[in-house]
Amino acid sequence: MTTPKSPQRVQPDWPSAQVDSARLWARLGELAKIGGTPGGGVDRPALSGLEVAARERVTVWASEFGAGAHTDPAGNLLLRLDGADPSLPAVMCGSYLDSQPSGGRYSGAYGMLAALEALSAISRLGRPARRTLVAVCWMNGEGSRFAPGYMGSEAFAGLRQLGDLLPVEDAAGRSMGSELAALLAKPSTPPAIPLGFPATAYVETHLEQGPVLEFKAKQIGIVTGVQGVRRFHIKVIGEAGHVGTTLRRHRKDALHATVKIVAALDQFFATPDVGFTVSQLRVEPNAPSIVPMETNFTVDVRHHDNTVLTRLGNTIRLICESEKGRCAYQMREIVSTPAILFAPLVPKAIERAAARIGLSHMPLLSLGGHDAQSLHHHCPSGIIFIPCKGGISHSPAEQIEPAQAEAGAKVLADVLWELANA
Amino acid sequence: MTTPKSPQRVQPDWPSAQVDSARLWARLGELAKIGGTPGGGVDRPALSGLEVAARERVTVWASEFGAGAHTDPAGNLLLRLDGADPSLPAVMCGSYLDSQPSGGRYSGAYGMLAALEALSAISRLGRPARRTLVAVCWMNGEGSRFAPGYMGSEAFAGLRQLGDLLPVEDAAGRSMGSELAALLAKPSTPPAIPLGFPATAYVETHLEQGPVLEFKAKQIGIVTGVQGVRRFHIKVIGEAGHVGTTLRRHRKDALHATVKIVAALDQFFATPDVGFTVSQLRVEPNAPSIVPMETNFTVDVRHHDNTVLTRLGNTIRLICESEKGRCAYQMREIVSTPAILFAPLVPKAIERAAARIGLSHMPLLSLGGHDAQSLHHHCPSGIIFIPCKGGISHSPAEQIEPAQAEAGAKVLADVLWELANA
Repeated sequence: MTTPKSPQRVQPDWPSAQVDSARLWARLGELAKIGGTPGGGVDRPALSGLEVAARERVTVWASEFGAGAHTDPAGNLLLRLDGADPSLPAVMCGSYLDSQPSGGRYSGAYGMLAALEALSAISRLGRPARRTLVAVCWMNGEGSRFAPGYMGSEAFAGLRQLGDLLPVEDAAGRSMGSELAALLAKPSTPPAIPLGFPATAYVETHLEQGPVLEFKAKQIGIVTGVQGVRRFHIKVIGEAGHVGTTLRRHRKDALHATVKIVAALDQFFATPDVGFTVSQLRVEPNAPSIVPMETNFTVDVRHHDNTVLTRLGNTIRLICESEKGRCAYQMREIVSTPAILFAPLVPKAIERAAARIGLSHMPLLSLGGHDAQSLHHHCPSGIIFIPCKGGISHSPAEQIEPAQAEAGAKVLADVLWELANA
Repeated sequence: MTTPKSPQRVQPDWPSAQVDSARLWARLGELAKIGGTPGGGVDRPALSGLEVAARERVTVWASEFGAGAHTDPAGNLLLRLDGADPSLPAVMCGSYLDSQPSGGRYSGAYGMLAALEALSAISRLGRPARRTLVAVCWMNGEGSRFAPGYMGSEAFAGLRQLGDLLPVEDAAGRSMGSELAALLAKPSTPPAIPLGFPATAYVETHLEQGPVLEFKAKQIGIVTGVQGVRRFHIKVIGEAGHVGTTLRRHRKDALHATVKIVAALDQFFATPDVGFTVSQLRVEPNAPSIVPMETNFTVDVRHHDNTVLTRLGNTIRLICESEKGRCAYQMREIVSTPAILFAPLVPKAIERAAARIGLSHMPLLSLGGHDAQSLHHHCPSGIIFIPCKGGISHSPAEQIEPAQAEAGAKVLADVLWELANA
């Protein structure tokens, strides 16, 4: 008889042994009640009363193991566990607490609670790490209320000026700046701290939001990079006409041209490693008897290789040109985030931690964007992925298992401990 | 030297000689101010204050030559010039005064003013016609505020029960019934008359809304029939997902399926005599990072042969079935108006009148719908077409010339006179 492999070895010297996975799971359930939706998901817009309530809950939980809280001018919440030598650059981890309107309960929230649990486990070791540890809740990670996302982390990393972000409005016409000012003015908001500080590493934990880990039956994904995104807004300009009497060859039908453009793009981008989506499309005047006179739509293209991504994006114009028929079009790029490859420091540490704990693991490219992309420009960064059911996210059907949540938090705790003592 | 052909001979015995074309043109300009839009078009929703104002203007003009006004329970405005023998079934003509949101100034308004001018010309002959003449302003001819159109004429002809139409709501949630009740309760609204009365013929005058008469350089189109319409509402049901991380082969992208369906329909319907339009399309949730989970769109198919029209419409389901991919769909028919061929009475009278006046003319099929389609089921009916610039209508760019307006009104006057004395 062979002894069954123990997948999670006890490593009493490492903080992973101290992770309280039952508490982690219970708190995921508690957070999901803040902005919970009937379908079991959450709707927690950035800087809304619901998101602020979630931040306050997390701040209380951090105070239980002695972490101090601060808020920076971009509305990032920083939970700080002092190290033995506070003069050294800190080690950071974190995630976000806002959600998509039809969001799941784990995206963002899981990463934030795993960070909290990791710091708590480290505090329980009874001896501080060399470096200070900071768990951050980034402002507007999703970008669904104020587009685009990663505002807090981009402002922190100096990629965007906070002043340029303040005028961004939500669908109701409220500016991000006014909501941020309201947060910073609240008596319950933790005290201010300046934007940005030196850091030696940043580690994020997130569900994969894709099917690879589940399919390959791996417990941990070591994210080596994030695919790049180019998003274009295209306006097709046709001419109104009577649906019955305007012969098709005389029409300038904006929707007809749009369908031809999108169908051609779909054929051109039909390669497994290319991300291609048209997720938004509006038709004017959208009336039963009027030939469409205008459409506005977005084309989202993703790839892990920036050379390919540049070429793909540039081809869109050629396809619009060839398929527009008698219509005119205008095109502008609204998002341009190059693909990145993380420096080896964090991915290597993740690999060592997973191996030490005895978790199956594999390197993986992130197809979705993350705040770690911003931090990559500030310090060596990386992401720990855990599997999720069916690769589904941004949906109430998003689902992870308690053992998966535990595995990610344990890896994070050990990675932070290693980096903070280096 | 040859004498130049006089295109419009003077026929002093016929009312066409009495048509005041300068006044007709001036009044077209006056009506265009009621609901006039910056681009030179009109926006005059059915039963709105603007449309009621236009009705009131027309009623005053009718009273100037002694025509009495009535309103029936469907909100049709009836302007009546008594004949020598009021016991005989009447001869009817008319059009409508509502418009598309981005409507032109001539659709509807021209037909209504031509009817008024024709009755006025007949009244100036000094001897009544045998039969009573009635010029009708049909309620909701366009159907852009309350869908679908022809409500007044369908209720008049008994094709639809008024009670079934009353609950129809506009985009703001106001019911047709409440707006109709408000009209009927107005002190300035002409007195009531029951729905429907015997008629011997109905004649409508309208711009072609197509390019044929202009292209063939003909002054008058004799409409022999109207192509049929089938309109379908299709809902494609997919599944929301993360744009970055949900691989394309795992998606149920409702917009992607919709583009494939519409592109396939476009190919299938690529025959010159088939009308095919997708004019309305909405995407849910229409958010930047969410794979479309649902679309709702309409497919409008038109043909002059009912056998072909039935086959075309039935094919849509097969194409949805073959192109839906991993999505589901629901489909229902929302408009089904068979093609019609008018009885010869009115078209023959139009042909005789045009020849007598010396106007070039040709038989023509109407590609757009008209209230005459409803009246066709009530009495022999027909339509006089005049050319319009570039075939453009349902647009502020809609344009006709004074001489074209005059020609249509003259033909109508003579047709009515002949039919009313038969």
